[in-house]
Amino acid sequence: MTSTDPKAKITIAGAGPVGSTLAIILARANYEVNLFESRADLRKQKAYLGKSINLVLSDRAWSALKELDLEQEVKSLAIPLYKRLIHTVNGELKSQNYGNNKQALWSISRNQLNECLLSHAEQEQRVNIHFEQRLHHLDFNTSCASFINQQERPYQQREIEADLLFAADGAYSKVRRLAQETPRFSYSQNYMEQSYIELTIPADAQGKHQLDKHALHIWPRDKFMLIALPNLDGSFTCTLFLQHQGNPSFQSLNSAEVINSFLQENFADVFPLLDNPVENILNKPENPLFLVSVNPWVFNNKIALIGDAAHAMVPFYGQGLNCSFEDCRELSALIEQHQHDWQKILPAYQAQRKVNADAISKLAISHFEEICQQASKEEFLLRKKIEDKFHSLYPDLWQPLYTMVSFSADIPYQQARKIGEQQKRMMDEIMCIPNISECWQQEFVYNKLKQLVEKIT
Amino acid sequence: MTSTDPKAKITIAGAGPVGSTLAIILARANYEVNLFESRADLRKQKAYLGKSINLVLSDRAWSALKELDLEQEVKSLAIPLYKRLIHTVNGELKSQNYGNNKQALWSISRNQLNECLLSHAEQEQRVNIHFEQRLHHLDFNTSCASFINQQERPYQQREIEADLLFAADGAYSKVRRLAQETPRFSYSQNYMEQSYIELTIPADAQGKHQLDKHALHIWPRDKFMLIALPNLDGSFTCTLFLQHQGNPSFQSLNSAEVINSFLQENFADVFPLLDNPVENILNKPENPLFLVSVNPWVFNNKIALIGDAAHAMVPFYGQGLNCSFEDCRELSALIEQHQHDWQKILPAYQAQRKVNADAISKLAISHFEEICQQASKEEFLLRKKIEDKFHSLYPDLWQPLYTMVSFSADIPYQQARKIGEQQKRMMDEIMCIPNISECWQQEFVYNKLKQLVEKIT
Repeated sequence: MTSTDPKAKITIAGAGPVGSTLAIILARANYEVNLFESRADLRKQKAYLGKSINLVLSDRAWSALKELDLEQEVKSLAIPLYKRLIHTVNGELKSQNYGNNKQALWSISRNQLNECLLSHAEQEQRVNIHFEQRLHHLDFNTSCASFINQQERPYQQREIEADLLFAADGAYSKVRRLAQETPRFSYSQNYMEQSYIELTIPADAQGKHQLDKHALHIWPRDKFMLIALPNLDGSFTCTLFLQHQGNPSFQSLNSAEVINSFLQENFADVFPLLDNPVENILNKPENPLFLVSVNPWVFNNKIALIGDAAHAMVPFYGQGLNCSFEDCRELSALIEQHQHDWQKILPAYQAQRKVNADAISKLAISHFEEICQQASKEEFLLRKKIEDKFHSLYPDLWQPLYTMVSFSADIPYQQARKIGEQQKRMMDEIMCIPNISECWQQEFVYNKLKQLVEKIT
Repeated sequence: MTSTDPKAKITIAGAGPVGSTLAIILARANYEVNLFESRADLRKQKAYLGKSINLVLSDRAWSALKELDLEQEVKSLAIPLYKRLIHTVNGELKSQNYGNNKQALWSISRNQLNECLLSHAEQEQRVNIHFEQRLHHLDFNTSCASFINQQERPYQQREIEADLLFAADGAYSKVRRLAQETPRFSYSQNYMEQSYIELTIPADAQGKHQLDKHALHIWPRDKFMLIALPNLDGSFTCTLFLQHQGNPSFQSLNSAEVINSFLQENFADVFPLLDNPVENILNKPENPLFLVSVNPWVFNNKIALIGDAAHAMVPFYGQGLNCSFEDCRELSALIEQHQHDWQKILPAYQAQRKVNADAISKLAISHFEEICQQASKEEFLLRKKIEDKFHSLYPDLWQPLYTMVSFSADIPYQQARKIGEQQKRMMDEIMCIPNISECWQQEFVYNKLKQLVEKIT
C-alpha cells in the first residue's frame, strides 16, 4: 500500500478530537478515510451528552494543530491561563505563574473543540463521516469492521473493509475491549480512590467572569480539591474531586445539611458563587477516575490504538489530550519518514509513543498529590521557591518539570520524567541543608545546586 | 446467615485443587456446597486436557492440608526435592540445598492432586459436585448464578441460588471476566516475554528416574531455561521457558535443524534423554505466562475470588498453589474467628490476602531473573555464599528470602518480601567491601553484616 494507491482505505473508530484530527492528517496524506462515531453529530445537538470535563491545551497540542494550520482558529475558542490561583481554606489567594508571560495553559470546552475539528475533517474531500454507527465486530487480522446503525430497526450490520483501522474511540474504547480476546494482550485499568462531579459558576449579571479568568483556580484540600476553568461565555466549569468512600466522600455527603457544612467549611469563598451546589452534589452521579495501560498498541500492523483508547489517564496534569495530539503529530511525521510503509510506521509509532504515554500517565497520578498538598505543605512551597530562583539564575541548567511537560513540546515526556526524578533527588539534598528555610536565599545554596547539576550532566 | 441455619448455601465455581479444598472446608463448617466444574470429571478421563505444568508444594500447602487431615495422603503422591541441581552449559552440576535435610519442595502432578482432593470433597455429605456445567451468568448482587450443561442439546440454563459464591475458576476465571462489568473494578493482566512448553524425560528400561529424583533440575541460560520435575512413574516433566519472539525464541526455532543445534548448544547433557524434543518444540503450541491482579476480590460481601482467579502469577517461585492453599486456610480461620458472620469474614479475607498475593506475585516475577542468571553470575553466587554462611552463624538474625517464602508458613509473604528487600540493601553494602570476592570468608565481613542487621531491628 503506497500513497499513490488510490484504494488505500483507512477506518477510524471515534470522531472525538483525536479521531477528527487524525482524519485530517490521513486525508491530507492522500488516504481515503471513513470516520465512524457511535454518537449523533454533536453540532446538531443542544445538550452535550458525552464526557464533559473541561480541557486545557498546552504546547504539545499547539504544535500538532499548527502543522494542520488550525492553531489560530482553535486558540480563538480558548482562554489563556497564565497562572495558578490557589484558594486557601481561609480565603487567602496565592498566585503561581506557569512560566514567563507567554507561557499559558489554554482553557477550552471539549465540545467546541470537537465541533471545530469535525467541521475541518468534513471539509476534507477524502473524509467520510458516519454518525450513530456503533462498532460491533472487528477482525484483527484484516481490519474489516462491522458497524450497526443506531437508527435503523431491525439492527443491521454494515461491513467496512479497510487497509488499516485506527481506534480513537476513547477511554472506554470498544476496540480495546475486543482486543482483550487477542493473544498475549497485556491490559490494566486502575481506579483512583477519588471520583468527580462538575459544578458551575455562572457569569455575573453583565455576562462577566466572577473570578480572574486568566487563571486556573484551585482549592486544594489534601485528599480532595475543587478546580475552576473559565469558559468563553463568562461562566466557569468547576470540578470537585473527592473520595468515593470514607470521610469526607461522595458517599458521606448524603444530605443537604452535611453538604452545606462541607462547602462552608472548605470552600467558603466560592460557595456563594456556585450554581446550586448542594443539590448538584446530592443528585449528580459521580464519575470515576481511572487510568488504562495496554500492550501492544498495534495489532498485526493493521490496527492501532490512539489517544485515550491507548492511554486513558487521570486529568491532573492537564496532558491527556495534549498527549493524544502528540500521538497524531508523531504518526504524521512517521508516515512521511517511512514513505507510507505501514509495516514500518506502526511498529515505530508504538515504540515511540508507548513509553511517553506511560511516563505522562505516571506523572499525572503523582501530580494529584502535589496539587492537593501545595497550599498546606510549607516544605513543598519552599522547594518550588528554590527551584524557581535557580531556574531564573541558570535557565539553561534547570527547567522545572512542569515547564518541561507543558511548555517544551520538544522534550519527550519520558525524558522530562527522568530529568524530573534527578531534580527531585538533588532538591532532596538541598532540603537537608541545616536551617534551609532561613538560609534559602543565600548564594551558597545555589552554588551547591549548580555543582550537583553539573555532576550529572 | 449462621452456621446453624440449615439453608446457608454456597456455590463454588471451579473444582480444581482450590475449589475442591474450599468445598471440604466449607462443608465441614456446615455449609451446603454446590461445586461446579466446566470440564468433565478428570478421574474418568484418560488424557488430561487442562493446564499441566507440574506443581511443587511447600510448607504453606502442607499447613493447609494438615488441618484437613490430608497432609500424609497427598505427600504419598509427591516426591520431596531437597536441592536444586544447576546444569551449566558445559555439563557441570552445581548443587544447592533448599534448607536443612527436612526442608523440601514436593513435586506432584496437578492431575493426581486434583483427583485426590475431588474424591475427598465428594465424600463430604454436604458437597454436591456438578461436572460439565459452564458458568453462563452471575448476578453480583444476589450471587445467583446460571450454568449451562455442556452435554444437553439444546443448551439450557440452570439457575443456582446461593447465599455466597466463591470463584475458584482459575487463571482464566469467567467470574473475574464478568466482574469487569461491575463499577470501579481495577484489573490488570500482564504477559511475560517468555512462553513455555512441556517436554518429557521418560523412565529408563527399569522404570527408574534417569536423573537424581530428589532434586529440581535447572538449566539456566539467561533469557531462557529448562527445568525438570520428577514424577512417581520414573519420568520427569520438563518445562522449557523461552521468549515468544526474538532470538532464540519459539518463533525463531522454526525448523528441525535450528532446534537441533539449539538443543545441542544449550542442553547437550539432557538432549539425549528427552522424548522427541525436536518434534515437540516444532509442533506443540506454546503456552503464555501471565500474571493477573484485581481489586476488589470481594463483591457486595456475596461473591469472592480465590486462588488463581484472584492472583494468577508466574510459576517461578513455585508458590502459586501454595498461596491458594493459604487463601483457603486463612479463610477457614476467619470463619471461626468471626463466627460465620460473612459481613466481617469477606472484608477481612480481602484485606489479609490481597497484600500477600501481591507480594508473592512480585517475588515470582523477580525470581525468574534470579534463577536464569544464577549459573552465570559470579557476583550472585558470592552473595548467596555470604548469606548462607551468615545464616549458619546467626540463624535467628537472618533467614534467606527463599526459606522465608517456602519453609516458613508463619511469615506472611508481604513480610518476607519486606525483609528480603532490607536484606538486599544490606548485602549491597557488603558487596561494596573492597576485594570482597577474596576476603568474603573473613570474620569482619560477618561482624559488619551483624551490625547492619542489628541497626534495623
